[in-house]
Amino acid sequence: MPLSPEQKAEIDEQRAAHAPTLRAVSPGMEARLYAAIPVLDHGFVRVIDYMGDDAAIVQAARVSYGKGTRAARDDRGLIRYLMRHWHSTPFEMCEIKLHVKLPIFVARQWIRHRTANVNEYSARYSILDREFYTPAPEHLAAQSASNRQGRGEVLEGEAAARALGLLRDEAGRAFDAYDRLLDGEDGLARELARMALPLSTYTQWYWKVDLHNLLHFLRLRADAHAQYEIRAYADAICELVRDWVPHAWEAFEDYRLGSVSFSRPAMAALRRMLAGEAVTQENSGMGAGEWREFSEMVGK
Amino acid sequence: MPLSPEQKAEIDEQRAAHAPTLRAVSPGMEARLYAAIPVLDHGFVRVIDYMGDDAAIVQAARVSYGKGTRAARDDRGLIRYLMRHWHSTPFEMCEIKLHVKLPIFVARQWIRHRTANVNEYSARYSILDREFYTPAPEHLAAQSASNRQGRGEVLEGEAAARALGLLRDEAGRAFDAYDRLLDGEDGLARELARMALPLSTYTQWYWKVDLHNLLHFLRLRADAHAQYEIRAYADAICELVRDWVPHAWEAFEDYRLGSVSFSRPAMAALRRMLAGEAVTQENSGMGAGEWREFSEMVGK
Amino acid sequence: MPLSPEQKAEIDEQRAAHAPTLRAVSPGMEARLYAAIPVLDHGFVRVIDYMGDDAAIVQAARVSYGKGTRAARDDRGLIRYLMRHWHSTPFEMCEIKLHVKLPIFVARQWIRHRTANVNEYSARYSILDREFYTPAPEHLAAQSASNRQGRGEVLEGEAAARALGLLRDEAGRAFDAYDRLLDGEDGLARELARMALPLSTYTQWYWKVDLHNLLHFLRLRADAHAQYEIRAYADAICELVRDWVPHAWEAFEDYRLGSVSFSRPAMAALRRMLAGEAVTQENSGMGAGEWREFSEMVGK
Amino acid sequence: MPLSPEQKAEIDEQRAAHAPTLRAVSPGMEARLYAAIPVLDHGFVRVIDYMGDDAAIVQAARVSYGKGTRAARDDRGLIRYLMRHWHSTPFEMCEIKLHVKLPIFVARQWIRHRTANVNEYSARYSILDREFYTPAPEHLAAQSASNRQGRGEVLEGEAAARALGLLRDEAGRAFDAYDRLLDGEDGLARELARMALPLSTYTQWYWKVDLHNLLHFLRLRADAHAQYEIRAYADAICELVRDWVPHAWEAFEDYRLGSVSFSRPAMAALRRMLAGEAVTQENSGMGAGEWREFSEMVGK
Repeated sequence: MPLSPEQKAEIDEQRAAHAPTLRAVSPGMEARLYAAIPVLDHGFVRVIDYMGDDAAIVQAARVSYGKGTRAARDDRGLIRYLMRHWHSTPFEMCEIKLHVKLPIFVARQWIRHRTANVNEYSARYSILDREFYTPAPEHLAAQSASNRQGRGEVLEGEAAARALGLLRDEAGRAFDAYDRLLDGEDGLARELARMALPLSTYTQWYWKVDLHNLLHFLRLRADAHAQYEIRAYADAICELVRDWVPHAWEAFEDYRLGSVSFSRPAMAALRRMLAGEAVTQENSGMGAGEWREFSEMVGK
Repeated sequence: MPLSPEQKAEIDEQRAAHAPTLRAVSPGMEARLYAAIPVLDHGFVRVIDYMGDDAAIVQAARVSYGKGTRAARDDRGLIRYLMRHWHSTPFEMCEIKLHVKLPIFVARQWIRHRTANVNEYSARYSILDREFYTPAPEHLAAQSASNRQGRGEVLEGEAAARALGLLRDEAGRAFDAYDRLLDGEDGLARELARMALPLSTYTQWYWKVDLHNLLHFLRLRADAHAQYEIRAYADAICELVRDWVPHAWEAFEDYRLGSVSFSRPAMAALRRMLAGEAVTQENSGMGAGEWREFSEMVGK
Repeated sequence: MPLSPEQKAEIDEQRAAHAPTLRAVSPGMEARLYAAIPVLDHGFVRVIDYMGDDAAIVQAARVSYGKGTRAARDDRGLIRYLMRHWHSTPFEMCEIKLHVKLPIFVARQWIRHRTANVNEYSARYSILDREFYTPAPEHLAAQSASNRQGRGEVLEGEAAARALGLLRDEAGRAFDAYDRLLDGEDGLARELARMALPLSTYTQWYWKVDLHNLLHFLRLRADAHAQYEIRAYADAICELVRDWVPHAWEAFEDYRLGSVSFSRPAMAALRRMLAGEAVTQENSGMGAGEWREFSEMVGK
Repeated sequence: MPLSPEQKAEIDEQRAAHAPTLRAVSPGMEARLYAAIPVLDHGFVRVIDYMGDDAAIVQAARVSYGKGTRAARDDRGLIRYLMRHWHSTPFEMCEIKLHVKLPIFVARQWIRHRTANVNEYSARYSILDREFYTPAPEHLAAQSASNRQGRGEVLEGEAAARALGLLRDEAGRAFDAYDRLLDGEDGLARELARMALPLSTYTQWYWKVDLHNLLHFLRLRADAHAQYEIRAYADAICELVRDWVPHAWEAFEDYRLGSVSFSRPAMAALRRMLAGEAVTQENSGMGAGEWREFSEMVGK
């Protein structure tokens, strides 16, 4: 359970306090504000603030004095054009601020996306809550045999029980040690004691990013190659974006998430196939790995 | 006159359309939204959108679940502490989006601040309006004799008239050439014709930046060493920030704008002076330029 | 002629002064160092410094203690893999520093790429040389009829002569005015006088960027949709990169420059075509613009 | 012992392979290249590559065709001027690439500096070595009583032994669990097993940054308020910078490390003191915390 009753009360209070504004308002996002979307066993994502909507993208692209285009239909068309032709700056004109609670090993992947603003809870200053991530049984997987960086089969039976027990026991023991290290008048400084904690420990931060960089993040992290645990957060954020800027989201799905990039040799092979030729790896000039990826792309 | 009647009507329309929001609202900024603050002879700055307020800085610094501190008084104290100790990330949690109309030579100084989002009006795509900057008489200054990068005495009489006439005539003639280059079926491509225009030509852009980077911009550009023309824009933005986040602004004035940095040799001299010693350039170990700056700093 | 005899002598001096280093050395780049590649009528690009080579990309990807892989063949394969799967950070480990002389309107497009370091020649501090860009006859083109942002037919005969004459005369007259504005004891301050100059005026800067961001720049600016004048610089830089990191360049050509991205609807159409179906715009679900782009991509 | 014999051999091999270059060479840095400077119990910093030297800063500031100024003495003066007046872009023209081995909790502080390039060793792909940080006795400190974010007295006797034992035992047990989790055909995926490891575990990365941003990092992290463990790395890097760009380092010491910033109220108090007035907290207008800091600054 990611939130305490006090925290829930604070959120309810925020959700009750409407005020008038002259700014662009996204109804889909207003319905989401402050509420926590649970992710993993103790984590969440919640929107703290946002700036802009679909019309703001259009307005910025035109450097206009008033709202976007006359007709909402034109906004959609222009947004699709901008996305298709990789115009990134209009999408940078929308901004979102999230409060995220997440395991430290996920935070370490996340922070590699540098074009964002971050305020993280300080374990130098404060004592961390006893909360760590334990995978659900369906996510306890063995190392992949084919891919050095990924998961293979889900563990079952005794192997699963053993792994789960080890993860849980070790994390519990580490938190016990943390408590003992901090305990008493001659307790260790917080900034040192924290290093006994496991990478599964939950931390939290405020993360603020523009829409262009957020979509780039989602493209990499809502992808099947991303580690499941960060993908779970990316998937939750996808839902938020869909409600926030529906036209931009639709264009993103069509031109990024659902798009496929063909290399120069792949394009050569593709054009020969469309001309009726039988193309094989041998006569394609592609390496084995690349050919396998190509075959999946064209669905052969 | 920077705005056409149509543009004014569009702005009035935007200022009339209130909607409820759950987000943090800054009353001082709501009063400012969309309205153009005139700058120079044809330019302006206007706020298109903003995110956050003083409480949002506190909330981010605490990674809190609800609003900032219990008492507004505590918010002010914490903000001053954060500013004094160079904690930059909480200030990054506020964001502002401006629409600016400005001469191209000012835009070229402005764009050096890279941590911002920009959408500029495209002179490849559109034809620029016949608008260029001509300095008011009190800003027509001679080259400084002492400072290679700056202005000296204000020009007067014939010298002023001559300079003003040259600037105005040449810009006018350049716009005539621009019109003729674009004219007719075999008119030159816009992306080429524009290069006949002078650097005094007005352009416009949407510029979006977080509060931390905005304050850094203001520190450099609202400074006496900045060129007057960009300082005029910075000064206008200072007014906006004061209304938007009054506590952050006050702290910025005390700990940045009004602060003075003493070098290691300057500190040594200062401590000797406080101990009653007579310190001169010769016995200070400072160079001539540095000593002159030091003397101004301590008001001697 | 972009360089004075003094400047040439300084460059020759630099090209004569070898020194031993323990750093990674790229022979292709050493042959290029300092020498100016002419671009447009008065511009150039020259390499002032570089860091890293193909092996450095591999070394960084592996966080290794020594050089890259054992066999150069493996370096190539790994670099291709990294490029194909959008691993950007290893390419950020190479850096290049260029000295570029370019017209101001080109500099304004260039500077939009924010992830780079720039030192530009200051027209507040110094007086600019009398050098401005005049297009060669084959680049004097009319506005495109079909594309609002681009060029159409090349101008010929009288139309060409008229445009060229206007550009040249106006720039000349603007430089005359600049000289007169600066002239004498009560000459106008440099920071003001410069605004009489046209956007075709040459400026120069040092521009430093990592390989990943440089390739992104080249992908956008060495593209047929980029304005010819900036493309001329991008093309010159492509030659430098090819000599500097040949494996990375080859991978970039195959997976970026020569690659084609198919949207979700385009992939659906493509798969139907590969299955032998006759696909038309009407039954594809694509808009007219998108269908036209798709048809070009598949070469139909 | 941070390096294995194989790693040492690889480093020796690199230090033996000189090649001629036309680039700027820093003799102080050549003497440092590749060699590991030990930090903490298992960590190190070593320079992998660098770009530029003191003369390159001057050369970029002048956008010059050849080397820096005629006389080395002038280079020093100009660099001091640039540092004193916060000209940051010339310092961005130097770049350094480091290989760092460091505990994960230190890496998490370090990565907050976003303007840098990073390649970290992947624990999704590879198995981490059994290496974790244990503080030396003189760094085992209690929580500070006065400062919520910092250390107080060094622990002694039984308290020290208890803390050290707990840290060591728990980390050892966590690594045992990690081994068992990975063990066997149905071993857990690496990307999951790693989360049992403590924050004291060593990781390593390649970190590349420009000199301006490096100096900013050092200003914050070589400071007495930084956590000792990251300060140890910052101190080692300070030694490198001193050898690399001696003039820039000297200016940095004088104008940044050794400088003191006085707020607006502090300057008012200072000027009154210099005029012979007796200033107290009460008549200074400063808060208690600010007055305490002020008194330390003026050495009263």
